[in-house]
Amino acid sequence: MIYVVGIGPGNAEHMTHRAKKIIKEVDVVVGYKVYIKLIESLLTTQIVESNGMRGEVERCKKAIEYSRNGKTVAVISSGDAGVYGMAGLVLELSDGQDHVEVVPGVTASSAGAAILGAPLMHDYCHISLSDLMTPIDKIMNRVKAAATSDFVICFYNPKSHGRPDYIKQAINMISEIQGDDILVGLAKDAGRDEEETHIYKIDEVNYDLIDMTTIVIVGNKGTRMIGNLMVTPRGYEL
Amino acid sequence: MIYVVGIGPGNAEHMTHRAKKIIKEVDVVVGYKVYIKLIESLLTTQIVESNGMRGEVERCKKAIEYSRNGKTVAVISSGDAGVYGMAGLVLELSDGQDHVEVVPGVTASSAGAAILGAPLMHDYCHISLSDLMTPIDKIMNRVKAAATSDFVICFYNPKSHGRPDYIKQAINMISEIQGDDILVGLAKDAGRDEEETHIYKIDEVNYDLIDMTTIVIVGNKGTRMIGNLMVTPRGYEL
Repeated sequence: MIYVVGIGPGNAEHMTHRAKKIIKEVDVVVGYKVYIKLIESLLTTQIVESNGMRGEVERCKKAIEYSRNGKTVAVISSGDAGVYGMAGLVLELSDGQDHVEVVPGVTASSAGAAILGAPLMHDYCHISLSDLMTPIDKIMNRVKAAATSDFVICFYNPKSHGRPDYIKQAINMISEIQGDDILVGLAKDAGRDEEETHIYKIDEVNYDLIDMTTIVIVGNKGTRMIGNLMVTPRGYEL
Repeated sequence: MIYVVGIGPGNAEHMTHRAKKIIKEVDVVVGYKVYIKLIESLLTTQIVESNGMRGEVERCKKAIEYSRNGKTVAVISSGDAGVYGMAGLVLELSDGQDHVEVVPGVTASSAGAAILGAPLMHDYCHISLSDLMTPIDKIMNRVKAAATSDFVICFYNPKSHGRPDYIKQAINMISEIQGDDILVGLAKDAGRDEEETHIYKIDEVNYDLIDMTTIVIVGNKGTRMIGNLMVTPRGYEL
């Protein structure tokens, strides 16, 4: 039996009861070493299999092997296991041959939105700017379509060493389509003790503050500041 | 102090530790009566203020009033409070004058995706088909843009008595753009004891099974069946 467990944004209090219970009760916990660290306090007698970035396929294969040898296994995923997480890979590699349960969690956009205010009260999309497995043209085409139809846009994986400028290119494209009154929120380490937020007019974003742990939320035409928070009104008459 | 609390999809085990702790500790709990029922087991001495559908503005005003009278208040929202939930309305009505914390939860698309397989492993969007506060033309324009750029699409509020046919119109439009190999998953009451799923080829959807508690997830061109589950591969070479 394999559980693919979304542990939420990082802080234990944003983990669901089911996620915690399963991690505590399984025989084996498998995960990226940085995420294993986040759930360390739940580990007692479980076997732990961890490795580094880009070791996803190896981790999932190991999890399946343990499961086929009769162990219960939790594959750890940050945020929600089903959102750019490990759920798909486990199901692909298992190919319908194993009993798999996906345990949902709080995804990064929800955690980020919560500390920025309420930017996701209207239709929005998730776009990952990682081009490791998706051509950048296809990604930018999605950015364009989303901006043109006035979606709020959440960027996952906004920046890494190999692609430092995509987020700036994407936001410039949105600015050209939507105008310069659009708001951009950065949520760094949302849901962890060191969380911080920054909100800018779209032409004033400080791109140096964006890294891999940042969720970038670009508002739609209705998004506005209320106090020091970013809110996309749902449309109630008040 | 006002907490806007996402209680997750319904079952207590999918609630976060922070959500549960806050509901237990506040002086006043405010919510739609159906959601109050879902958290009944956490209620002891709290004052409870509940009302019916479309009573959102009244509920939020009451919450703010209690808070200004020195009480701690939890405004309950299903799923994630920041996704088509109560967070925006509380912040709008409070207008920067109150201390508000948004407590994120597991949103309905994450809960639905978890029981359908892993359809949200690639870029996706959320579209609400409720036209109470958004013109239907604007909504359908978003559907078209999302399909044209090959997003996975999650429909919230897919159907109600006043608008029974929007979901069919939207899915027909996607079928015309994306072709008839696209998969459509229905997740009903995801994250509750009575949850059920149905997965169809796009031209074979049984629309009678869709109601207000259903999340409808339309795959992208890469989404495929693995065993009896719906998976959108992230793109790993296996």
